[in-house]
Amino acid sequence: MMSESETATDLSVMDLYNHLTAQGETVRNLKTNKAPKVDIDAAVQLLLKMKVDYKQVTGQDYKAGCPPVDGLVSIDNDSAVEEGDDQVDPWTVSTSNAKGVDYDKLIVRFGSSKIDQELVDRIARVTGKTPHHFLRRGIFFSHRDMHQILDAYEKQKSFYLYTGRGPSSEAMHVGHLIPFIFTKWLQDAFDVPLVIQLTDDEKYLWKDLSQEECHRYAVENAKDIIACGFDVNKTFIFSDMDYMGSSPSFYRNVVKIQKHVTFNQVKGIFGFTDSDCIGKISFPAIQAAPSFSNSFPQIFGDRKDVQCLIPCAIDQDPYFRMTRDVAPRIGYPKPALLHSTFFPALQGAQTKMSASDANSSIFLTDTPKQIKNKVNKHAFSGGKDTVEEHRKFGGNPDVDVSFMYLTFFLEDDEQLEKIRQDYSSGALLTGELKKCLIETLQPMITAHQEKRKLVTDETVKQFMSPRKLHFNS
Amino acid sequence: MMSESETATDLSVMDLYNHLTAQGETVRNLKTNKAPKVDIDAAVQLLLKMKVDYKQVTGQDYKAGCPPVDGLVSIDNDSAVEEGDDQVDPWTVSTSNAKGVDYDKLIVRFGSSKIDQELVDRIARVTGKTPHHFLRRGIFFSHRDMHQILDAYEKQKSFYLYTGRGPSSEAMHVGHLIPFIFTKWLQDAFDVPLVIQLTDDEKYLWKDLSQEECHRYAVENAKDIIACGFDVNKTFIFSDMDYMGSSPSFYRNVVKIQKHVTFNQVKGIFGFTDSDCIGKISFPAIQAAPSFSNSFPQIFGDRKDVQCLIPCAIDQDPYFRMTRDVAPRIGYPKPALLHSTFFPALQGAQTKMSASDANSSIFLTDTPKQIKNKVNKHAFSGGKDTVEEHRKFGGNPDVDVSFMYLTFFLEDDEQLEKIRQDYSSGALLTGELKKCLIETLQPMITAHQEKRKLVTDETVKQFMSPRKLHFNS
Repeated sequence: MMSESETATDLSVMDLYNHLTAQGETVRNLKTNKAPKVDIDAAVQLLLKMKVDYKQVTGQDYKAGCPPVDGLVSIDNDSAVEEGDDQVDPWTVSTSNAKGVDYDKLIVRFGSSKIDQELVDRIARVTGKTPHHFLRRGIFFSHRDMHQILDAYEKQKSFYLYTGRGPSSEAMHVGHLIPFIFTKWLQDAFDVPLVIQLTDDEKYLWKDLSQEECHRYAVENAKDIIACGFDVNKTFIFSDMDYMGSSPSFYRNVVKIQKHVTFNQVKGIFGFTDSDCIGKISFPAIQAAPSFSNSFPQIFGDRKDVQCLIPCAIDQDPYFRMTRDVAPRIGYPKPALLHSTFFPALQGAQTKMSASDANSSIFLTDTPKQIKNKVNKHAFSGGKDTVEEHRKFGGNPDVDVSFMYLTFFLEDDEQLEKIRQDYSSGALLTGELKKCLIETLQPMITAHQEKRKLVTDETVKQFMSPRKLHFNS
Repeated sequence: MMSESETATDLSVMDLYNHLTAQGETVRNLKTNKAPKVDIDAAVQLLLKMKVDYKQVTGQDYKAGCPPVDGLVSIDNDSAVEEGDDQVDPWTVSTSNAKGVDYDKLIVRFGSSKIDQELVDRIARVTGKTPHHFLRRGIFFSHRDMHQILDAYEKQKSFYLYTGRGPSSEAMHVGHLIPFIFTKWLQDAFDVPLVIQLTDDEKYLWKDLSQEECHRYAVENAKDIIACGFDVNKTFIFSDMDYMGSSPSFYRNVVKIQKHVTFNQVKGIFGFTDSDCIGKISFPAIQAAPSFSNSFPQIFGDRKDVQCLIPCAIDQDPYFRMTRDVAPRIGYPKPALLHSTFFPALQGAQTKMSASDANSSIFLTDTPKQIKNKVNKHAFSGGKDTVEEHRKFGGNPDVDVSFMYLTFFLEDDEQLEKIRQDYSSGALLTGELKKCLIETLQPMITAHQEKRKLVTDETVKQFMSPRKLHFNS
């Protein structure tokens, strides 16, 4: 509903809309003409700022091709999946909202459950540990059957953890560590075994890479994963290309799953088409198989009833929706899940980061100087254009990437809250906020690099050998 | 072109057509009402006899729903695959011709080459052996690139053999032995290594069987295969469910093939639909992978250039057409092929035998008495209804299943030719022909059973262990 000032607002909204559309055109032209990266980045940042302003004025997200109607951007609330909805699947994550994906909507769409305060408190009670800040801050925000896992755990019935990574390049960025940092916390808090799948076969099928490259990336990525501090006695890391060929039990589960999923189903879930190769079409079964304990007889013997808990980014959920659908039909328990939000690119929360764009994130190989330069140059700011304006109106931490990164990596809750307040009030300038982030990331990345250096080929081999693990079952 | 006696013939043809159609209806009704097997068999035999007569009068095959036009059955010669064409794919083999599938037509349709006298002579020359009677008698009738194999062999560049079996039941019948009998001859004649794939995963995907059953059938079938006399030093037999899980190289080739074949392609080749499970859709890559030597590093090291020769029944050709299409795109040599005709069911050459119908063939577990009864009772006869007529007009060996079986198993060319002449002239009665067959099969099956008894679990384990083989490369 609009107020009496409708007409004036209409004009302003229409102006904003037209400017935004023109700026979108400018960005497209720059990209088409392969303009210097720095120019494109500047234009994109302006575009994002304009979108934030547009939203502030209209209360609605800008949608290209949809001019504001009666002063409001038209929104179709009828269809379950709205045209303006964020797109989230294992290969595409996109949103037009500078704050990032609307996760509450995603919970409704995916049919998962919100991780509410009650669940966070219960995890604290059951484990006797302070919940990880990823839980406290809603970075892991959604779950499936976590209460079931805790019910069983309280009755001394244990579970195991499963997470993974698609090794599409040697370089990992800080965002890639999120599931591993959290999984390491879960492993310590619950004292349970963990399997980590490196889907080198998937990357070979999807990317223009050789099998040798994908496998090498898997081994290199394993080093970064191990550097997160996993316990070798409780952790099995495997490359699909190796493990499929060394475990008849794993292959048997893959075939079992493949028998119970039709092309129609994977078409519906993953959007595959008739032109996709048969490797892609059957791959989901390979990501599903580690959800069942008898895929790892060296760890669980012939037990098929040890439940699995999967911490992962929400974009991987389609694989596990499929897995949970199949599980009861092949006599296995459904895996439970804990879903994380996406780690934003330096340029803004609209997209997932790209491992192929060195400036889109902080890489685990970056030097302190690179970190400083990247944050200062590329981190999208929620601050105002001039110091005067910033002091007067304050910055917007909700769209500020430096602040978002601090939410992920600054462990001190009070310090984080103070930064939020000072930035919002204008007491803290963008440069000062960025300095906080730089000073948080630099020692963290250096420490990671130190730990990674200690990971020898022998250690990797140990983690990647199928063997018995030590845990209380 | 019809002669002046057209009108009379027309009537007779139309009568025959109507009677035949009615008899087809009778057979269908008996089957629908689950009539006693013996009644159905009798009705089917009559139907087949009527079809033979129809063909003799009209010179054309009977086609249900297509009444004779101008005294001739209408034939559409325009389309490449005619409506009345035999259906031949890995899951269906059917023909309306009592003599069986039209193999010359199949060669044209599949784009393979006929095994002509020149090729048979060349094999004799190169190996210094009398060609196997399967070659002399056109039972192996079609090939792909066999001259290439021989060219290389003459230049001391060797190859390897690959054949297989889908273990859908414990019971194998004599027809199942054809590719193995011939492969054993090839192995001896060329002194080359051999791999035998038991597709227990395929049978699990296609049939209502458990993985355990399929694997058990694979091991049981391996015993019958070993009893054919393969050299353990040159032969590797493997179950897919075991070998996939014990050879990273095999899985890597499977994924490589799966990356280079689309759903559109397998849909075109195998007729898969969107309702098929993703296991079926990706399975063709698993049957393709043994065609490449680096799937067996324990045998060939990292050599990917050892060419493969595949002796198999023609219905398996679609798998290898796909394989030959993929091979150059992944840098491997195309496998060569030798195709056999189908072994007819006792009831007639219209269909492939069914392992689930005990009366459709002679099983490797049959007693001499069972063999005698089955041949006498169920083997479709090309003889006349009465001794008098038979003596006068002679029998038709081309549609007589007992004679067909002798073509497969009676090694003496002269004796076989004499039987053909005597049966055609009427000198040999159906009962006498059947006796010849019984006396050929009984000692053969007994000998097989003796040899199978000597195959211990230890022997099976030896054949099925991935290991180095001994051959001159």
